[in-house]
Amino acid sequence: MAKNITDPGKDYARWYQDVIREAELADSAPVRGCMVIRPYGFAIWELMKDDLDARFKETGHTNAYFPVFIPQSFIHREAQHVEGFSPELAVVTHAGGRQLEEPLVVRPTSETIINHMFSKWIGSYRDLPMLLNQWANVVRWELRPRAFLRTTEFLWQEGHTAHATEEEAREETMRMLGVYTDFMHRTAAIPVIPGRKTDRERFAGAVDTYTIEAMMGNGWALQGGTSHYLGTNFAKVFDTTFLDRNNQRQYVHQSSWGVSTRLVGAVIMAHGDENGLRLPPKIAPVQAVVVPVGMQDPRAPEVMEAAQALAEDLKARGVRVRLDDRENMSPGFKFNHWEVRGVPVRLELGPRDLEAGQVTAALRIDGSKTRIPLSGAVDETKALLESIQERMLRDAREFQEARTYEADSFDDFMERLPERPGFYRVWWDGSSDDEARIQEQTSATVRCIPLKQPGGRGKCFITGRATSTTAVLARAY
Amino acid sequence: MAKNITDPGKDYARWYQDVIREAELADSAPVRGCMVIRPYGFAIWELMKDDLDARFKETGHTNAYFPVFIPQSFIHREAQHVEGFSPELAVVTHAGGRQLEEPLVVRPTSETIINHMFSKWIGSYRDLPMLLNQWANVVRWELRPRAFLRTTEFLWQEGHTAHATEEEAREETMRMLGVYTDFMHRTAAIPVIPGRKTDRERFAGAVDTYTIEAMMGNGWALQGGTSHYLGTNFAKVFDTTFLDRNNQRQYVHQSSWGVSTRLVGAVIMAHGDENGLRLPPKIAPVQAVVVPVGMQDPRAPEVMEAAQALAEDLKARGVRVRLDDRENMSPGFKFNHWEVRGVPVRLELGPRDLEAGQVTAALRIDGSKTRIPLSGAVDETKALLESIQERMLRDAREFQEARTYEADSFDDFMERLPERPGFYRVWWDGSSDDEARIQEQTSATVRCIPLKQPGGRGKCFITGRATSTTAVLARAY
Repeated sequence: MAKNITDPGKDYARWYQDVIREAELADSAPVRGCMVIRPYGFAIWELMKDDLDARFKETGHTNAYFPVFIPQSFIHREAQHVEGFSPELAVVTHAGGRQLEEPLVVRPTSETIINHMFSKWIGSYRDLPMLLNQWANVVRWELRPRAFLRTTEFLWQEGHTAHATEEEAREETMRMLGVYTDFMHRTAAIPVIPGRKTDRERFAGAVDTYTIEAMMGNGWALQGGTSHYLGTNFAKVFDTTFLDRNNQRQYVHQSSWGVSTRLVGAVIMAHGDENGLRLPPKIAPVQAVVVPVGMQDPRAPEVMEAAQALAEDLKARGVRVRLDDRENMSPGFKFNHWEVRGVPVRLELGPRDLEAGQVTAALRIDGSKTRIPLSGAVDETKALLESIQERMLRDAREFQEARTYEADSFDDFMERLPERPGFYRVWWDGSSDDEARIQEQTSATVRCIPLKQPGGRGKCFITGRATSTTAVLARAY
Repeated sequence: MAKNITDPGKDYARWYQDVIREAELADSAPVRGCMVIRPYGFAIWELMKDDLDARFKETGHTNAYFPVFIPQSFIHREAQHVEGFSPELAVVTHAGGRQLEEPLVVRPTSETIINHMFSKWIGSYRDLPMLLNQWANVVRWELRPRAFLRTTEFLWQEGHTAHATEEEAREETMRMLGVYTDFMHRTAAIPVIPGRKTDRERFAGAVDTYTIEAMMGNGWALQGGTSHYLGTNFAKVFDTTFLDRNNQRQYVHQSSWGVSTRLVGAVIMAHGDENGLRLPPKIAPVQAVVVPVGMQDPRAPEVMEAAQALAEDLKARGVRVRLDDRENMSPGFKFNHWEVRGVPVRLELGPRDLEAGQVTAALRIDGSKTRIPLSGAVDETKALLESIQERMLRDAREFQEARTYEADSFDDFMERLPERPGFYRVWWDGSSDDEARIQEQTSATVRCIPLKQPGGRGKCFITGRATSTTAVLARAY
């Protein structure tokens, strides 16, 4: 067990905070509910952002930027939207030394202001589809903040699209859910269950909300991202219309979709262990660290030279590498430093390694050590990084599968959940009231109706009615 | 003269607005003083951002993120800082449905909150230098907004560093001024004069402010970026200290530096002409557009095929290219579409070109056309883009030099400035009061004391006193 890190089996919430502090990912800010994202934590976010941004561009989207301030009246136009967001709004009432005539809301999300602009930009079917994305900060007042997971201000991207038909907008909604799913699997090495939210969990203003649900190390669920089919709800209140091919005025059909810095929290909790962070190579700011050891040995200068050369070779071949040549620090201190930070591969090089023409590769994923020939160390390291990336997804998938249970009845569920936290896949025909009751009694919620259904029919675990639908329930962040 | 674009010689301000509208760079927002950055404008900013970000990382900086909200009391701690920023602040007084105990300011800049965090993170000389950067939105209430140049909200980067000594902090301040200068020359193709600001123009809270001043198409100056040596001003009020090698507690010496989306405005005005935008290839979202022509010809299918192949080859070789295969639009309409948007190279391909094994390259920089062999079109286009990049800097430099004047006396200056707007390089030994008077009578300001001084001595153009210092004066955005 690493120093200063609580055993996750004893107190998962404290373990999470400890990892964030020791790996220098974030710090609390002097403003309630806000956090400071420190360089190492921000570098993880940057790598995720770059990966996602390339995916958005490949699927035809371009970035734009809309104001952080939204006239309060805009938020009030869509009935569900205002009901959902009002309690969380931060409001600017004074600016430039005067009281404002109309207060401005700090954006909690941008559907309203973007629709206002869309209504100016969209005239005919030729302007459609309009496929925009925005990387921005948003604010939702948070009374029980938790670093990365729930903070008053967070960073995110919000895609906003307008289409001529419901079919196209629904296709887009599912396409972006697919992009998120693929990103989580291939880049973040986190398996997710894509599914539809129930009415109770739907985005305020959407017709349908889709989600990707990931499992954290304590068996809880985390909503990794959402993609909404908005129908014509916002188009109607902002008059976002177009002339179709028959010169008829029609409302646009819209989607919006987003992921946020909470994904950093997901990475911490999906992969971290009792020694701190474990990072998938694709989003590791440092993929490999070279640590020269045996610095008291007379051959130390040669070791240092070889270590420098190795680090340079790795860098030249595109590996994000650090040489830890800090003086007056023991190898053990350095090992721990990079272990807590989740660096996938540590390359130890000492006088005896150098003599034997080898380097010792220690893998963060399982602590294993292998000796690799110094001459082929770059290729070998790159191969290790690739296999680690795959293995982390496989391990996480096995973890999730092992903690996915069934429940025949609500009693059964209530009894087992506290002892065996995880995903419960149940036959589902319940109502919003049923969901409220479940949450009240178990703190669990319906995470989603998975897109992939088993087929066949069964009895709803709460109503007893026959149904062909299953849902996934879990406690969630 | 392009349709819908005012002659810049007749009304430069309207020309600027016309270009922004016709090239779809930005739009006004439904919030006073704010703008929406449209996809094409944002793509220019993204290219600048990526280029700058790489430069910051090469010089040892890492990105982090600090909250958008700053406790009002923080702003009040540094006397000059509060005086400078108070009139421009936007203030959140209500959040989460309640009145806040302490109002929160939407950050106008982040020196205060970053110093608060630095004081937690910095303990000893081993933690120094601390070299951070943040990409963020900031808000400064603006009564006379102008797209990109002066908007209530804008996007920028703010570098914040802490050092053990004044010497190191001053070195950093100048290093980053150098990074900005090099970026402006090599990437934005805009020549700048690096220099020091007078006391009157100094950043609120800095010991010394350095600037890079660029010349716009109407002879006015534009401050492209600033780099400040903050001394220990913020360190003292936030108690940002470290233990030095002798175990003595010392205040850190700091720098901060920033550039913003106003650089998009600088690009428009430094390079634009009567037909719209002209973009340097390095920051052009579309570097080359392929336009098939002669679509009524029986050979149209072959032309389209060749145009597609050319576009694909260019893309594969790293050129940002578009194929304009839109139907029912005349070549002339398309030419104008890309001309207004400043695309450096237009490649026209028609049946006769195809027969002759050639493609016509039309350059936005001067409207010239050259025929290049289709077989070597990719190499030729890449070579053209490189030469255009260099030529745009050369042209802009010649433009600036031709509009840089001298003035022997204030009368001389007052008489010539209205007729010959430009940079006036004068001997300078004036005071802040002199500067105020100059501004009142001519609207011009001291842009900077250039780092590069001519040597020798002369008589101050306003006080008549002998001095070895020259200054650059101009009207400015």
